[in-house]
Amino acid sequence: MRILHLADLHIGKKVHSYSMLEEQRHILCEETMYVIRDNNIEVVLIAGDIYDTPMPSGQAVELFDEFLTLLNELNIKVYIIPGNHDSAERMSFASDILKNNSIYISKPLNYDVDNARLESYELCDEYGKVNIYLMPYLRSGNVKEIIDNTDIDRNERNILVAHQFVSCIGYENELSDSEVISVGGVDNIDVGIFDEFDYVALGHLHAPQHIGRETVRYAGSILKYSFSETDQKKSFTIIDFREKENISIEKIPVVPINDMRKIKGPINKLLSEDIYKDGNVNDYIQATITDEDEVFDAMRRLKEVYVNLLKLDFDNSRTRAHNKVENIDNVEKKDELTLFKEFFKNRTDMELTEDEEKVMIDIINGVNKV
Amino acid sequence: MRILHLADLHIGKKVHSYSMLEEQRHILCEETMYVIRDNNIEVVLIAGDIYDTPMPSGQAVELFDEFLTLLNELNIKVYIIPGNHDSAERMSFASDILKNNSIYISKPLNYDVDNARLESYELCDEYGKVNIYLMPYLRSGNVKEIIDNTDIDRNERNILVAHQFVSCIGYENELSDSEVISVGGVDNIDVGIFDEFDYVALGHLHAPQHIGRETVRYAGSILKYSFSETDQKKSFTIIDFREKENISIEKIPVVPINDMRKIKGPINKLLSEDIYKDGNVNDYIQATITDEDEVFDAMRRLKEVYVNLLKLDFDNSRTRAHNKVENIDNVEKKDELTLFKEFFKNRTDMELTEDEEKVMIDIINGVNKV
Repeated sequence: MRILHLADLHIGKKVHSYSMLEEQRHILCEETMYVIRDNNIEVVLIAGDIYDTPMPSGQAVELFDEFLTLLNELNIKVYIIPGNHDSAERMSFASDILKNNSIYISKPLNYDVDNARLESYELCDEYGKVNIYLMPYLRSGNVKEIIDNTDIDRNERNILVAHQFVSCIGYENELSDSEVISVGGVDNIDVGIFDEFDYVALGHLHAPQHIGRETVRYAGSILKYSFSETDQKKSFTIIDFREKENISIEKIPVVPINDMRKIKGPINKLLSEDIYKDGNVNDYIQATITDEDEVFDAMRRLKEVYVNLLKLDFDNSRTRAHNKVENIDNVEKKDELTLFKEFFKNRTDMELTEDEEKVMIDIINGVNKV
Repeated sequence: MRILHLADLHIGKKVHSYSMLEEQRHILCEETMYVIRDNNIEVVLIAGDIYDTPMPSGQAVELFDEFLTLLNELNIKVYIIPGNHDSAERMSFASDILKNNSIYISKPLNYDVDNARLESYELCDEYGKVNIYLMPYLRSGNVKEIIDNTDIDRNERNILVAHQFVSCIGYENELSDSEVISVGGVDNIDVGIFDEFDYVALGHLHAPQHIGRETVRYAGSILKYSFSETDQKKSFTIIDFREKENISIEKIPVVPINDMRKIKGPINKLLSEDIYKDGNVNDYIQATITDEDEVFDAMRRLKEVYVNLLKLDFDNSRTRAHNKVENIDNVEKKDELTLFKEFFKNRTDMELTEDEEKVMIDIINGVNKV
C-alpha cells in the first residue's frame, strides 16, 4: 500500500501579511496530484493544521474543498485530523456523510477525553489488513490514556495519525522559531508511547523529520511559513507499507512557485544584477542591509528588484547597539524561567535569589501542568 | 413528489443572550424527522439562513451536521442555499462530494454575477421531470439578470429555492421588527420575475406567508426568534407536486419545547398561580410590568415563576413620560428619511426644508442602489 503523508497545510496563512493561498493552491491542487499519480498513491493522511486558524476565510475553505474534491476524483482514501490551529467541531462538518466517499475526518474527542478511544478504520491490500487510527489534536497529558483505552492488535499493521509535539531522548527536534520548547518538557510526548504503531504520521513541527525510529515521522509543512524555516527542505513523504515491519519511506522535494529565502549585504550589492540574476527575484525575501551609512528608501528600492520582499532588517554597528534591548522574536526561544528572571532584573535591577528561583520553578511547572 | 420546504433555521442564534440550540436540535433532529416519515417526504429544500452568522460556532456546525446526517440516513434529497446570514464560501465546503450523497449545496455566485446562471438539478417522479434551481442569496438588483441568463423550459416543472425580499403589489408582507422596509422599496423583488417557476421556496422573512400566488411562499423561520414574532404561527410547509400546475400545499404546525410569548400586568397578578398555571412557565417570556409604584427586584421574583424570562419592561405613567425619547427598538421600523429628519430636528431644533428633503431622498436612494 502506497501512502502519502501530509501535514501542516495552514491553508489561508499569511506570512508578513502576504497571502500564501496561490502557493498553497499550486502545491495542493497541482503538485500533490502529480505526486499521487506518479507514485500510485492510494491513501492520503493529513496530520492536522489544515487551516491556519479555527475561523478560516471563505477562500481558505474553498481551496481545501477543491483539494478534497480532486482527491475524491482520483478515488483516494483520505484520513484527516484537526491540528491545534483547527476547530475540530467545524472541521468535522459532514464527516459521517463524507465517509461514504472515503473521506474520513476525525470527530472531536473533547467531550469526554477520559473514556475516549481512537477512531479507527480498516483498509486492505495484498498483505492483509491495515488499521488507521485517528487522534485529533489533544492536550499532551491525554495522549497516553487514549492510546491505552484503545484496543490495538499488535499482530496487525497499525498506523496512527496525530498532531503532537513528540520527542525522543538523544534526539534533538528540528524546530523553527515559533515551535517553543517548554520548561521541563511538559508538552512533549515521548516517542515510546507509540510503540504499538508501525507508522506514526505526525503533524505539528514544520521541518520534515523522524523522531527516534524512521517510522515516527513529521511530514513537515507543505511550504516554508516563516523566515526561520528557510533552510528546511520541504517534502512529500511517501510510505510504502508491505508486510508488518516492512516499511520504506521516500521523500520527494516540494517545489513551490517561489522559494522563501534570506539575503544580506550592502544595498548596492543586493541590487546588483550579478547578485540577483542567479536567484528567482519573485522569491519571498527577508533582506538584511548591512550598510553603515543611512540608506534612503530601502524598501522601495529593493522591491523594484525583489517584488516579494516581505521583511527588511538593518544590521550595522548602530542597530547592534540598539539591539541590546532584545529582539522581540527571540522571546519565543526562551523558557519561562529565563523570561521571568530577565523581567525581574529589568524591573528591580536585582537577581532572583536561589530560594526565589525555586519558588518560580514550582509555579511555572504548576501552571504548565494545568 | 412530496417536498418539505424549510428556511431560516438560524442555527446557533441567541435570543436576548439565550441560546436556542436545544430548541433547534428538537425541531431539526426530532420533529422534522417525524414530519418527514409521517408525510412520505422525499425532498427537503432549505432556503437560506442555515446559521445565524457567517462564522457559526462549533456547536452550531455540529448540529447542522447532525441534521444533514439524519436526512441522509432517511435517503432524503436535500437542496440548500446560503442566506444573507451565511458565508456562501464556507457553507459550500465539500459540496461537490456531497452531491454523491444527494446533498446539493449551491456554490457562491459572487465572482461573476453578470454571467452567472442558476445551478439546477433534475429529479424524476411518476409525472416526469422536475428541475430544481438554486439561487444563493444575492443583491436584489442581480436576481432578474441571473434568471434571464438561465435556460428555463416553461413546459417542464420548475422549482426555485431563493433567499430574497419578495413583494407583490396589493399584498402587504407580514414583517417582524428586524425586517426593515427600505425607502422606495429598492431591496424588494417583485413576485412577477418568478413567473417561470411553478413553486418558489423562499427564505428571509420569518413569518410563513405566500406572496401573491399561493406557490411563491416563505416557509418562515423554524422558531420564533424575536418577541415581535410571538403572534406568528411557525409551520412546516409541505408541497405535493403532481402534474405541472397541480400543486397542493399543507402547513403543519411547529411545536417547540417552549413557546415564546409576552405577558403584561401588575407584578402580583403575573405571579399569581391563577394566571401562570394556564401557561407553560418554561416559555421564553417578555414581561411588561404595569404597576405605578416602584417594583422591587422584579427580575428575580418573576424568574422564580418564569424561569426563562428573557426581557423585562415597565409600562406606567412614568415610563411613558420617559419614552418620549423613542424606544431604540422602534428605530428599525422607521425608514431612513424619517430617521434622518428626527436626527436633524434633534441636533438643530429645525425642520428640513422641502429642498433639503429632496436632496436627502436622492442621497438615500443612491446609497441603497450601490
